[in-house]
Amino acid sequence: MEDSKYKAAGVNIDEQDKAIDKIKSIVKTTFTPDVLTGIGSFGTLFQIPEGFKNPVLISSCDGVGTKLKVAFMTGIHNTVGQDLVNHCVNDIFVQGAKPLYFLDYIATGKLYAGVVEDIVSGLAKGCKENGMSLIGGEMAEMPGFYSEGEYDIAGFITGIAERDKVLTGEKIKPGDLIIGLKSTGLHTNGYSLARKIFFEDLGLKVDDYVDDLGCTVGEELLKIHKSYYPVLKDAVKEGIINGMAHITGGGFLDNIPRVLPEDCDAIIKKDRVPVLPVFKFLIENGDISEKEAYRVFNMGIGMVCMVSPENIEKFYSLVKDEVFEIGVIEQGFKKAVLI
Amino acid sequence: MEDSKYKAAGVNIDEQDKAIDKIKSIVKTTFTPDVLTGIGSFGTLFQIPEGFKNPVLISSCDGVGTKLKVAFMTGIHNTVGQDLVNHCVNDIFVQGAKPLYFLDYIATGKLYAGVVEDIVSGLAKGCKENGMSLIGGEMAEMPGFYSEGEYDIAGFITGIAERDKVLTGEKIKPGDLIIGLKSTGLHTNGYSLARKIFFEDLGLKVDDYVDDLGCTVGEELLKIHKSYYPVLKDAVKEGIINGMAHITGGGFLDNIPRVLPEDCDAIIKKDRVPVLPVFKFLIENGDISEKEAYRVFNMGIGMVCMVSPENIEKFYSLVKDEVFEIGVIEQGFKKAVLI
Repeated sequence: MEDSKYKAAGVNIDEQDKAIDKIKSIVKTTFTPDVLTGIGSFGTLFQIPEGFKNPVLISSCDGVGTKLKVAFMTGIHNTVGQDLVNHCVNDIFVQGAKPLYFLDYIATGKLYAGVVEDIVSGLAKGCKENGMSLIGGEMAEMPGFYSEGEYDIAGFITGIAERDKVLTGEKIKPGDLIIGLKSTGLHTNGYSLARKIFFEDLGLKVDDYVDDLGCTVGEELLKIHKSYYPVLKDAVKEGIINGMAHITGGGFLDNIPRVLPEDCDAIIKKDRVPVLPVFKFLIENGDISEKEAYRVFNMGIGMVCMVSPENIEKFYSLVKDEVFEIGVIEQGFKKAVLI
Repeated sequence: MEDSKYKAAGVNIDEQDKAIDKIKSIVKTTFTPDVLTGIGSFGTLFQIPEGFKNPVLISSCDGVGTKLKVAFMTGIHNTVGQDLVNHCVNDIFVQGAKPLYFLDYIATGKLYAGVVEDIVSGLAKGCKENGMSLIGGEMAEMPGFYSEGEYDIAGFITGIAERDKVLTGEKIKPGDLIIGLKSTGLHTNGYSLARKIFFEDLGLKVDDYVDDLGCTVGEELLKIHKSYYPVLKDAVKEGIINGMAHITGGGFLDNIPRVLPEDCDAIIKKDRVPVLPVFKFLIENGDISEKEAYRVFNMGIGMVCMVSPENIEKFYSLVKDEVFEIGVIEQGFKKAVLI
């Protein structure tokens, strides 16, 4: 195919084959015994795990957004896969799902096997950390779509839950405590605004060290989106969480109401939120109103759990992570209120 | 949010909300009774359909590739969703799966609610034609990633099959007939090369009428990728197909071997292939070798079925579509051979 017309049109099947060879062994390390087919078949077979009486599937799909631009700027491509996986895991875990398998979509203008290998390494690491199989994906070379050295990635997750144990939030009631778990940083939200402030307004480079952050701009902005499945799965299994919300785009204000009953409000006490230095830095240097900051960013809390006071001690004993009691559920109208 | 900093950074949550409002009702029309949650929850719940003894899930993921550029050039955005859905359906149907549900990823630089509505209309139409639910998706606004008016889309499909009825190709044996079903055109493969020939080499515009094609360039290049599920599902149910291959990127030569046993070759008789006018046009005007054409394009056959001679009459009676006996399985080495 060296001098083929297809290659002249910008598509290099040989480089694609090289990339597939590189990622085959990485991907296989994620396979659980429920994966029934290997790489190369059109679709991938996955058996429904044993032990469920009335299982339901819970699926979601997401991207990493413009956090990818930071990967391009730093040349670090082996963490965005973890961001993608962990974001997707959190999105189905808030409904009580155990993650089963993951598929990825990687699109680029010109395919470099080494970059694909880095991306897939991150995906595989994320999958393994969540006990999940990376069962397939699509690698699309699309000349003229993406700038040189750039790409986009999306992920698709499928999990499973016992139908009568799905977390819908309907068990949430006035008096429940709102427990927040720390985020690592921006996770995967608010990057268009954060990049504007860091790189355009302040003219910083990814390698610049920022005292307030204790690291370089690139290090701060590539901090990996945390998966809360490993630290919260035991508490979910015990049935002592009444509802969970993943704090993504839209912040507390948009995400918590998604799981609230019609007659409940979530009262968030701002002085209880462990606001991370990066958000203080962005608010100050970006001249952002506090209200907008709470709508765009997670502010330092990546996941909230609503827990009845009678279960709180058991919750604390099961959760091996720093937790913050940031608010309480009150009678209301399905709103999150910052006080 | 009119004057928000986030909007100034290129992200408009209000336009996203508008787009979500527009697509809500469209998406709901695709829901089968197995969809247990509506739009707005973090993940979507789907119950495993009744009637399966030992069900396995079959999943796949794909994009539309640079066919999207033709959508941008023509301003027609309501067909690429069908391309995406049908491509994904075929990829899992070749293993005997019944399509269950679909999720989409739509990424763009600047979000226009009307364009998103068109894309999702196509996705919903494709889903309904395949008896499948469009249960969720991600709409990502990524300033600086995509050129003005451009976007990328990816799809994730999940289907189900009875474990002992999964089509692996292992039943294929020497003497089986290779039956091809017509494609509508390029489907979703070879677009980088085709666009180069039409638009760069020949300098044609999407509105130019081409006598050899009997339509405009835009009409030809937007012909919808066909789903073979509706026309072949009865034959699959009857168990009279020994193996199927979806003819996508890589053509006959790469795709048929994926389902062949180690000791079988697929002998394709070129004079039996109903080569579509668009491929003759591309070969002639693009100065492409026949060998490369068969590796890049489907040439007019979008799906092949391997069928035992004793089942062929029943196959013909069950398949309500034009079929072409394009070859035969012989003893060999897992290769597709053009003669």
